[in-house]
Amino acid sequence: MSTLQETNHSYKKLTVDSISKKIVAAQYSVRGAVPLRANEIKEDLKAGKHFPFSNVVSCNIGNPQALQQLPLSFLREVAALVVCPTLLNHPLPFDDEVLARAKAFLKANPTGLGAYTHSQGFSSVRGEVAAFIGARDGHPTDPASIYLTNGASEGVKMALSLVCADSESGVMIPMPQYPLYSASLALTGARAVSYALCEEEGWSTRVEDLEASYCAAVDAGTKVTAIAVINPGNPTGGVLTGQAIADILEWAYAKNLVVLADEVYQENIYVDTKRFVSFKKVLRTLESQDKCLGLQLFSFHSTSKGFLGECGLRGGYMEIINLDPAVIAQVYKLASINLCPNTLGQLAVSLMVNPPQGDSPAAKVYRTERDSILDSLKSRAARSEAMFNSIEGVSCQPVEGALYAFPKLTLPAKLIEAAEAVGQAPDLFYCMAMLDAIGVCVVPGSGFNQVEGTWHFRTTVLPSGEQFEQYLRNVPKFHREFMARFQ
Amino acid sequence: MSTLQETNHSYKKLTVDSISKKIVAAQYSVRGAVPLRANEIKEDLKAGKHFPFSNVVSCNIGNPQALQQLPLSFLREVAALVVCPTLLNHPLPFDDEVLARAKAFLKANPTGLGAYTHSQGFSSVRGEVAAFIGARDGHPTDPASIYLTNGASEGVKMALSLVCADSESGVMIPMPQYPLYSASLALTGARAVSYALCEEEGWSTRVEDLEASYCAAVDAGTKVTAIAVINPGNPTGGVLTGQAIADILEWAYAKNLVVLADEVYQENIYVDTKRFVSFKKVLRTLESQDKCLGLQLFSFHSTSKGFLGECGLRGGYMEIINLDPAVIAQVYKLASINLCPNTLGQLAVSLMVNPPQGDSPAAKVYRTERDSILDSLKSRAARSEAMFNSIEGVSCQPVEGALYAFPKLTLPAKLIEAAEAVGQAPDLFYCMAMLDAIGVCVVPGSGFNQVEGTWHFRTTVLPSGEQFEQYLRNVPKFHREFMARFQ
Repeated sequence: MSTLQETNHSYKKLTVDSISKKIVAAQYSVRGAVPLRANEIKEDLKAGKHFPFSNVVSCNIGNPQALQQLPLSFLREVAALVVCPTLLNHPLPFDDEVLARAKAFLKANPTGLGAYTHSQGFSSVRGEVAAFIGARDGHPTDPASIYLTNGASEGVKMALSLVCADSESGVMIPMPQYPLYSASLALTGARAVSYALCEEEGWSTRVEDLEASYCAAVDAGTKVTAIAVINPGNPTGGVLTGQAIADILEWAYAKNLVVLADEVYQENIYVDTKRFVSFKKVLRTLESQDKCLGLQLFSFHSTSKGFLGECGLRGGYMEIINLDPAVIAQVYKLASINLCPNTLGQLAVSLMVNPPQGDSPAAKVYRTERDSILDSLKSRAARSEAMFNSIEGVSCQPVEGALYAFPKLTLPAKLIEAAEAVGQAPDLFYCMAMLDAIGVCVVPGSGFNQVEGTWHFRTTVLPSGEQFEQYLRNVPKFHREFMARFQ
Repeated sequence: MSTLQETNHSYKKLTVDSISKKIVAAQYSVRGAVPLRANEIKEDLKAGKHFPFSNVVSCNIGNPQALQQLPLSFLREVAALVVCPTLLNHPLPFDDEVLARAKAFLKANPTGLGAYTHSQGFSSVRGEVAAFIGARDGHPTDPASIYLTNGASEGVKMALSLVCADSESGVMIPMPQYPLYSASLALTGARAVSYALCEEEGWSTRVEDLEASYCAAVDAGTKVTAIAVINPGNPTGGVLTGQAIADILEWAYAKNLVVLADEVYQENIYVDTKRFVSFKKVLRTLESQDKCLGLQLFSFHSTSKGFLGECGLRGGYMEIINLDPAVIAQVYKLASINLCPNTLGQLAVSLMVNPPQGDSPAAKVYRTERDSILDSLKSRAARSEAMFNSIEGVSCQPVEGALYAFPKLTLPAKLIEAAEAVGQAPDLFYCMAMLDAIGVCVVPGSGFNQVEGTWHFRTTVLPSGEQFEQYLRNVPKFHREFMARFQ
């Protein structure tokens, strides 16, 4: 190649117009404009710049250990020994049950954490997951139907990409939804078919709303293949009853839909009137009544939520139910292209589904730590909900579960005009102002999808201690002062 | 919904014809037919069934710790403390440098391993990666250009999906290739454009072969946007010289291609005549000569290979070079949809790129462990190559680097007919027979793509100790006996 040729040649760089249209189309607000601005402010604060607050409170993402929640001792102690088995030869400040558990894991999995595992994950852990599901639901579970994953997200993405044949395929997702769903569908090149949750009824899922959404999609030429349900709800905080789940399953069955059940918040229920019921349990009950026989179901769980809050470890699993063997072979192939989920995440799943039991000292410590976290989350959920409902122009449905409140904003016309003038959605404009005024980072409802003309934001119930008290004081104060500017 | 309706309804299950066409099209042989059969045999062996061998030797995948390679002490000791920081308050059998490193990591990252990190990974680790690349290549590196990933695979998949605008886009990949590339392109829905490596010249990459492949693809209507190069080579074991890299870069620049450099085997070079030179270093040198200015490059690295062999931890990074800010924003968004790479993998990257230095006790132990692994790999690479070249009908190019040999088989016509009779590619037929006869699990060349009418298989150089000695004796014996059946 001559130098002359080189010099004259103008290399065409990639541009947004020449890269993947699917990636450009995807949106992911949880780490979008408001959190990006929050990161800038954090850097500025470190550099000594002055703001009306001394630190940013990150309520944009359910990330408990970023907000002072501590990891469970049993999990981390066992994990340390499995990471570094030579420690087992030395005196340690750990309970015997910790040592025994680490040794049992290493005996079942002699290559430890350093080797690629089976594409579905350690078989010992899949066995523990199957036993957990079996005990939870009262129905036997096959370890072969379990796929360990890097968090629940990886499983959700695998399932969404699997069930969509092509660009005319569509998956029904709730409105509001967790944006992983819309983003993953965009990346797959398939269509998101939104079904509205009924805000006035505590964000309930009504069959008539499912039917309306389904029919509109079919009319638009979409091949609807699946419905995703998030229970307990993200961002809504709503919890489905067993009857509501049965209604959804029977409706999905009649439409030949696969059901994707995002059940990562199954431990996070804060009201005495509700308890977690899995889609699998309801399905098996219906099947025993000759209903919904063979309905195909995916269920997802994670170590990131519940009371573990081990977001960084990226542990999770997917259970597949009633799939054909030929399709299962495709799921396996897809998992194998990812080689295997990270091994510490797999170990965390083992410890999540198989905690210390009974009256052992380790079990007592475990339950004390667990109850302390869950009691505190329950209190913070109730106080967050009450705080929002105390503000004029804000209403918040019951925070029955999960880690979020999704309050509704009644915004004055002048504010909406001001937002339009700077090219922002009104709820984005509101959230940006909240960040600038009090350092609280939340995500506008537009990032989750919402009924047109309504405005919301999602916040977590995760700030704790004095930070939470400040948050409870500052949010109403900000709201009043900000609204006053647009009367 | 009435029971009658339920009973009469026949639910349409997903079938291979109704799920994602892209997933069905993808192939991934490294965990394909031969390894699946090997897994069955392992289970049968456990159950007491009799085979002509007592255990399966898994040479299908570069998974060092599954074959007795031990993890490096420094990495695992620091990791144990970061996993369970309460250990820092107790007397431990660790060197002071281990304690200091764990404390420094926790100081830089106060939320430890339990929180989601920045979507690109811990900023402290990205800083260490940038310093490592800078020292390696002699050119400054911006931590903002580093994306930590779950192994290198995740980065490769992100880059491949980004550079393909649509289904007419194509990426040039070597033949033979690591099947992650063809599988990921199939999942993206884009085209794989194979360019042949020259086997007779030690699997070299020749510009005339690139040109021929490129022109044929363009003639077929493919918009070629990128070229992937694996150096050191997988499955070939070949190592590129700086001049060869410069030739590839200059050619890619003239064609407006993005270059994806898979450099995960950069520590695995076994011949004194070759050393690792990064694509980045060569690019920066060319740019200093006013050549290839602004050529866009992705480079990938991993904790799974080299001498760490930490496959299960899923640590890795991607460096992006010369990308436009608007495209970088899309890369960031894609990373953020994955939330963050697993944190233990991130810590492993930190310890890979920033090992203990100088004359400290920890550094001496580290170097002793490293050299022992690399010396042994070097010996096994040379002995594997010599063993294959000692067999009539088998030839093997120099195993200069990486973890694999890719010997070529000259197969008799009768064997090819026998394979066709059972519907198998001849090299798959051969590999299945090897597994059944001596328990050695390798992957047929057809899984990596090969020049039509040639047959190969990939094996790792990872068996060790007595297992390796047996392997060296058994493979030639199997070959002779199997060939004798088809004369």
